[in-house]
Amino acid sequence: MYILVLNGPNLNLTGIREPEIYGSTTLEDINSALEAAFEGRVALKFDQSNCEGTLIDRIHEAGLDSDCAGIVLNAGAYTHYSYAIADAIASVKAPVVEVHLSNPSAREEFRHRSVIAPVCRGSISGFGANSYRLAIEALLL
Amino acid sequence: MYILVLNGPNLNLTGIREPEIYGSTTLEDINSALEAAFEGRVALKFDQSNCEGTLIDRIHEAGLDSDCAGIVLNAGAYTHYSYAIADAIASVKAPVVEVHLSNPSAREEFRHRSVIAPVCRGSISGFGANSYRLAIEALLL
Amino acid sequence: MYILVLNGPNLNLTGIREPEIYGSTTLEDINSALEAAFEGRVALKFDQSNCEGTLIDRIHEAGLDSDCAGIVLNAGAYTHYSYAIADAIASVKAPVVEVHLSNPSAREEFRHRSVIAPVCRGSISGFGANSYRLAIEALLL
Amino acid sequence: MYILVLNGPNLNLTGIREPEIYGSTTLEDINSALEAAFEGRVALKFDQSNCEGTLIDRIHEAGLDSDCAGIVLNAGAYTHYSYAIADAIASVKAPVVEVHLSNPSAREEFRHRSVIAPVCRGSISGFGANSYRLAIEALLL
Amino acid sequence: MYILVLNGPNLNLTGIREPEIYGSTTLEDINSALEAAFEGRVALKFDQSNCEGTLIDRIHEAGLDSDCAGIVLNAGAYTHYSYAIADAIASVKAPVVEVHLSNPSAREEFRHRSVIAPVCRGSISGFGANSYRLAIEALLL
Amino acid sequence: MYILVLNGPNLNLTGIREPEIYGSTTLEDINSALEAAFEGRVALKFDQSNCEGTLIDRIHEAGLDSDCAGIVLNAGAYTHYSYAIADAIASVKAPVVEVHLSNPSAREEFRHRSVIAPVCRGSISGFGANSYRLAIEALLL
Amino acid sequence: MYILVLNGPNLNLTGIREPEIYGSTTLEDINSALEAAFEGRVALKFDQSNCEGTLIDRIHEAGLDSDCAGIVLNAGAYTHYSYAIADAIASVKAPVVEVHLSNPSAREEFRHRSVIAPVCRGSISGFGANSYRLAIEALLL
Amino acid sequence: MYILVLNGPNLNLTGIREPEIYGSTTLEDINSALEAAFEGRVALKFDQSNCEGTLIDRIHEAGLDSDCAGIVLNAGAYTHYSYAIADAIASVKAPVVEVHLSNPSAREEFRHRSVIAPVCRGSISGFGANSYRLAIEALLL
Amino acid sequence: MYILVLNGPNLNLTGIREPEIYGSTTLEDINSALEAAFEGRVALKFDQSNCEGTLIDRIHEAGLDSDCAGIVLNAGAYTHYSYAIADAIASVKAPVVEVHLSNPSAREEFRHRSVIAPVCRGSISGFGANSYRLAIEALLL
Amino acid sequence: MYILVLNGPNLNLTGIREPEIYGSTTLEDINSALEAAFEGRVALKFDQSNCEGTLIDRIHEAGLDSDCAGIVLNAGAYTHYSYAIADAIASVKAPVVEVHLSNPSAREEFRHRSVIAPVCRGSISGFGANSYRLAIEALLL
Amino acid sequence: MYILVLNGPNLNLTGIREPEIYGSTTLEDINSALEAAFEGRVALKFDQSNCEGTLIDRIHEAGLDSDCAGIVLNAGAYTHYSYAIADAIASVKAPVVEVHLSNPSAREEFRHRSVIAPVCRGSISGFGANSYRLAIEALLL
Amino acid sequence: MYILVLNGPNLNLTGIREPEIYGSTTLEDINSALEAAFEGRVALKFDQSNCEGTLIDRIHEAGLDSDCAGIVLNAGAYTHYSYAIADAIASVKAPVVEVHLSNPSAREEFRHRSVIAPVCRGSISGFGANSYRLAIEALLL
Repeated sequence: MYILVLNGPNLNLTGIREPEIYGSTTLEDINSALEAAFEGRVALKFDQSNCEGTLIDRIHEAGLDSDCAGIVLNAGAYTHYSYAIADAIASVKAPVVEVHLSNPSAREEFRHRSVIAPVCRGSISGFGANSYRLAIEALLL
Repeated sequence: MYILVLNGPNLNLTGIREPEIYGSTTLEDINSALEAAFEGRVALKFDQSNCEGTLIDRIHEAGLDSDCAGIVLNAGAYTHYSYAIADAIASVKAPVVEVHLSNPSAREEFRHRSVIAPVCRGSISGFGANSYRLAIEALLL
Repeated sequence: MYILVLNGPNLNLTGIREPEIYGSTTLEDINSALEAAFEGRVALKFDQSNCEGTLIDRIHEAGLDSDCAGIVLNAGAYTHYSYAIADAIASVKAPVVEVHLSNPSAREEFRHRSVIAPVCRGSISGFGANSYRLAIEALLL
Repeated sequence: MYILVLNGPNLNLTGIREPEIYGSTTLEDINSALEAAFEGRVALKFDQSNCEGTLIDRIHEAGLDSDCAGIVLNAGAYTHYSYAIADAIASVKAPVVEVHLSNPSAREEFRHRSVIAPVCRGSISGFGANSYRLAIEALLL
Repeated sequence: MYILVLNGPNLNLTGIREPEIYGSTTLEDINSALEAAFEGRVALKFDQSNCEGTLIDRIHEAGLDSDCAGIVLNAGAYTHYSYAIADAIASVKAPVVEVHLSNPSAREEFRHRSVIAPVCRGSISGFGANSYRLAIEALLL
Repeated sequence: MYILVLNGPNLNLTGIREPEIYGSTTLEDINSALEAAFEGRVALKFDQSNCEGTLIDRIHEAGLDSDCAGIVLNAGAYTHYSYAIADAIASVKAPVVEVHLSNPSAREEFRHRSVIAPVCRGSISGFGANSYRLAIEALLL
Repeated sequence: MYILVLNGPNLNLTGIREPEIYGSTTLEDINSALEAAFEGRVALKFDQSNCEGTLIDRIHEAGLDSDCAGIVLNAGAYTHYSYAIADAIASVKAPVVEVHLSNPSAREEFRHRSVIAPVCRGSISGFGANSYRLAIEALLL
Repeated sequence: MYILVLNGPNLNLTGIREPEIYGSTTLEDINSALEAAFEGRVALKFDQSNCEGTLIDRIHEAGLDSDCAGIVLNAGAYTHYSYAIADAIASVKAPVVEVHLSNPSAREEFRHRSVIAPVCRGSISGFGANSYRLAIEALLL
Repeated sequence: MYILVLNGPNLNLTGIREPEIYGSTTLEDINSALEAAFEGRVALKFDQSNCEGTLIDRIHEAGLDSDCAGIVLNAGAYTHYSYAIADAIASVKAPVVEVHLSNPSAREEFRHRSVIAPVCRGSISGFGANSYRLAIEALLL
Repeated sequence: MYILVLNGPNLNLTGIREPEIYGSTTLEDINSALEAAFEGRVALKFDQSNCEGTLIDRIHEAGLDSDCAGIVLNAGAYTHYSYAIADAIASVKAPVVEVHLSNPSAREEFRHRSVIAPVCRGSISGFGANSYRLAIEALLL
Repeated sequence: MYILVLNGPNLNLTGIREPEIYGSTTLEDINSALEAAFEGRVALKFDQSNCEGTLIDRIHEAGLDSDCAGIVLNAGAYTHYSYAIADAIASVKAPVVEVHLSNPSAREEFRHRSVIAPVCRGSISGFGANSYRLAIEALLL
Repeated sequence: MYILVLNGPNLNLTGIREPEIYGSTTLEDINSALEAAFEGRVALKFDQSNCEGTLIDRIHEAGLDSDCAGIVLNAGAYTHYSYAIADAIASVKAPVVEVHLSNPSAREEFRHRSVIAPVCRGSISGFGANSYRLAIEALLL
């Protein structure tokens, strides 16, 4: 059994881009820390893409894989308009948990609406890299 | 002469995803049945992609190919926000017919608006796999 | 068994009014051609009214008649605001297919919304007089 | 003195249409029960039309008739867009009470707005056939 | 040659209804005065209906009659939502002039929008019964 | 068995405030008259509070009390924005009937929307103190 | 006694600007023709300004002048947003008639709303230069 | 040091109300389980009120208390309109974490907007009683 | 004779909360300074509550007290949505002046609308603690 | 040191226009009374223009003059749409206080929004001519 | 041949007002630098006004002058609401290029819409004083 | 040092698609002409993709490359909805200039909004292929 931690557009630049919002930890740092924290409890797989279609492909693969216990998804800006990703989440069996590093409601207006939230198991935002950690905990509870 | 039957995001999961809306026939089943139904009348080509950019590429290729008599397009959720696909349809010579398995107007609010409809030759929705069949008939009439 | 082809407001002027949008074929021409095309396959009945209430009456009569295999309805401008016609469609057993000669999405903004679409079996638009033909085919499939 | 019980579009199908919302009692059943309940207290007249214009004609006739003590009006879907019926109500002397079998606010969004409510004496909804009974009581109080 | 003066819903109650807005002159008074004023200059025909469909029928008949020099139309509350009447006006050759007794912009919000104005030759409002007189003058200029 | 008649904000000033809208009868007068009218048919309890939280508490208490046959609720201005009261109504077994002294649709725009209507059994408005009487009748029918 | 014919922004270019909409007659041509048409019936004064403030000044002067029988105002684009001109009209005694050469409802969306219409005596649009003539007739009736 | 677990309107009925959405565990069950889970790690205080003003008072008291390590707040329906609670959160030093039992984005439209989210440290929703547990973990990380 | 200075939600934290917007003076400081400034001119009473219902109760008490010359009300965030407080103001005789420490129009969008302004005598905002002083002066003028 | 009292469009007609809203005192009366009231405390300058551009010029001149202690501005209807005046206020050093004779929130909808409020020091409305007096007091406090 | 560089409201304060947005260079500095940069290539004329009407006058004069090769227009805040200036641009032959010192899309919401852009040849924004230089280059290309 | 000229969806069809809007010059023609024009001044790199994700990848690569002096981006239809591309622009150091061949404000409504404009250095539109040339000049100034 494993959990897929899937990151969307621009999250490969985490720790480089706007550090006053997201902090200076890189995505690799976050992933390593998650791996260490959950070692012995659950296996983690990691992926990232800037492409909407590739994210849909990955949700299909993991979401229909009987070994996958869930998907932790930070869909970046696609969160706010990708009905195609929302449809992908709705079409798979594995539960998907939406995460955000910062609190989208405290940022620009367009970030207040999530089109994927209605089809996710739950949502966690605002705790920086700990958002991912809490999301994995949520899938393990 | 051939007609391209082009399917967009998540339609590769047809028959797996939400069967109460789309039925349990797979996309391969649909394509085979179409091929059988139109054998001897017109050649059919089939393609599917979850990627907006790849769909645009395919519309360009077929739409500018003088052998292509038309495109039957089920753009999935991109129907509702991809102005880029709409521009691609507007920029090619081949007529494009919009199809949907179910009736989008009977589902969530965001599915009531099609941004590609204004540039399509026509639209057919609500007849399940028969929507594709009627669309090919429409191009042959 | 028969299918009712029901036309709404101003469609009695088809072929007279704005021929650059609808073509110069009259409603009688369309009906005759349909009759010829489906001869031996299904009986067709035709009706037209400019009155919302009369259209509702017709939908009730045919829609509750066990001999009626379906209704092909071009509701004209009532498409965009007649919730009463939508209720009539919802209250009968016979399937109703919405048709339009041209593509409403390519015309004025108010024509982009159909209040009857959510209660119709399916919708076909943009193929001129062939929209009716495809709708009858759809009911026969 | 009499009270007019006037029903609008599709209410002639009451008891046939969507019984899970309106119940299986027909309009004739409702009218007979009302007649029985108010026998000896007030005379009742009944009418129904699917036509907006005919409903306006009836409101004019009864509303300007000095023998009419009031109108109980279930305007069906016209409730939500017929400013012409609203004007008719505003132009007569007899008080008009708006009734609905079910609670429109618990149904689709477009049923949450009544354009006739502002010119009615009062509104009663949600009590099935009893809505009419309470409306007549209200006119008699 | 003649001009059709066509009145819509509730205008048959002019002079009875809300006289503080429309004055106490009846529709018959208005029509007689118009006939007197234009005697020897142009023949006038008069009609009124509360039914949207009947108004469309009348516009078709007069609008396609080569003897008709124009239609003066007070569509009452249909002015604000009848796209079917707007389509009827657009589908005939005779020019149609929109009139209103009072100034709709000075009344309720929903009366500020005219869906028929875009297809009318012109609009005249606010001059009471003189609005009709000016409209006939406009058609004769 | 009893029915709770529950009044919300500012209704304690009934008969003092804006008598041209609500009349000069006080809330005590209304309650006494109701008690007299239903004596021997059903017991009535009365309560009023200007506090949203207290109203919720009262709905909980009565709504979960097996002796309570229903609640007649005039939520005053909370009608238009208190989703918390709506949730309270939805969470109890006893039926709740919404009442208003005057017709909210005939007053300011913000009073045209009721957020509690979708979860109420029914709604009665516009009959002054008789609105309460009809609501109790409705619960007894 | 005189009537002021007051023109707003860009109307000094009438006959030069977009002649397919307004025709090639200049503002001087229009004014001369009006003068000729009403000679012996009423004196006319003419003014034009591109400045909102100057138009307000002119409305004040004429509108408070007991010799002024009314103002015919073509406020050009200010029609659609100048609440200051609307206030000026509301603050004077002389009746103001709003005119437009073409029918604003048949042009861009922003031209469908007139903020001055609610305070004008009446409105006349769509008759080219004859709109002014009809407006003066309206003031003389 | 302690964490305050503060529940808003109607949450006292948890386990009674709409169990298909919230489950049948009562608020007392949830609180006991939390106490057991965090015993030895952090002290927990619990409070609930249906009153907006009382919730503000509690946020002030705990939020300005130097012993309070944070507040876990389920504001119920106040989440969607109480700018006063949002101001209370913004005015205290202690971090506040917003929790919801179910996923508000998967329910009615009005529950998609949180007016308190912009001023909260973070948000967790959709995990039933575990939402509280994860929120406390988040404050302890 | 006295004037009631009534403060709403979170204003008890004035001087503690967001001092860059409101300054560091506490509510007690403000009240003492007002008392000193108006000593010998008018008696002042002070109250504050975070509860909407309690504020309504206080407005009723003072507003119907013939000794009360007026109410100075800072309704905090309730300003923007409490139609119940607006109704309370409308239902009392004493004039109410709306005050704000800072200028709500210079802050978040939701603070640009005041639902109580239409029923207040006047409004004063942006002058810090002096807003109260000016409001009392306004009631004494 | 002096304060500029600047009045915008139509305020030169104060005392003539709609006296039931503004009272019958003229602008000269107001200015004289202000001069008398502040004699010996601060010098006052007065200006009025109906022209948006002239008001901007005056704000520039006074606002950049080191002798000017502030501007009291009644921008009339420009208040609701002149972003150019708002920019002028934002570009000068002198504080600007927005005043209105009556309470704009109690009048037409378009008067509920002030585009200049966000850049003004503060706002005072509803106290008739005393609004100016309080504004000057506010600048002197 | 010459190009007119026309500046609108508040741009005379450039270099004084909000230098963190526009820089400290004055309008005279900008104009001198432009003159130096284009010496020998094209003559430049400069004008500025805070008055909407004067800007329209200038656009008319230059735009109809056969010696004028184009107009570079920074309409300041009028950009966002002056349909009268938009009409002026549409009514002249000379091409008009819209310029802005800073990027309006990065500022307040109301600055995101330009009502003059649809009738301009092109738009250049965000390059400070260089925006003017690029606009002149664009007219010379 | 180099500048990246990056084109988005459908721009590979420039010169083929809708030449009445964009002209018949191909993208290769445009690029060659740019190379010739800037030879010796700055090196240019060119890229095009129909895929949102690929465009983001390219912006990351060039935008974080210390040799890159800026990016000239024509994002095609993605301009109007790709918040992911906007985030990519915001996350890199290199300045990005938005260009469009034609003026989007003069086309369909959905093209009036640019979601990338707020994070771009500046915007240039309407000058055909010269828009690119001016954008490169802007980066070199």
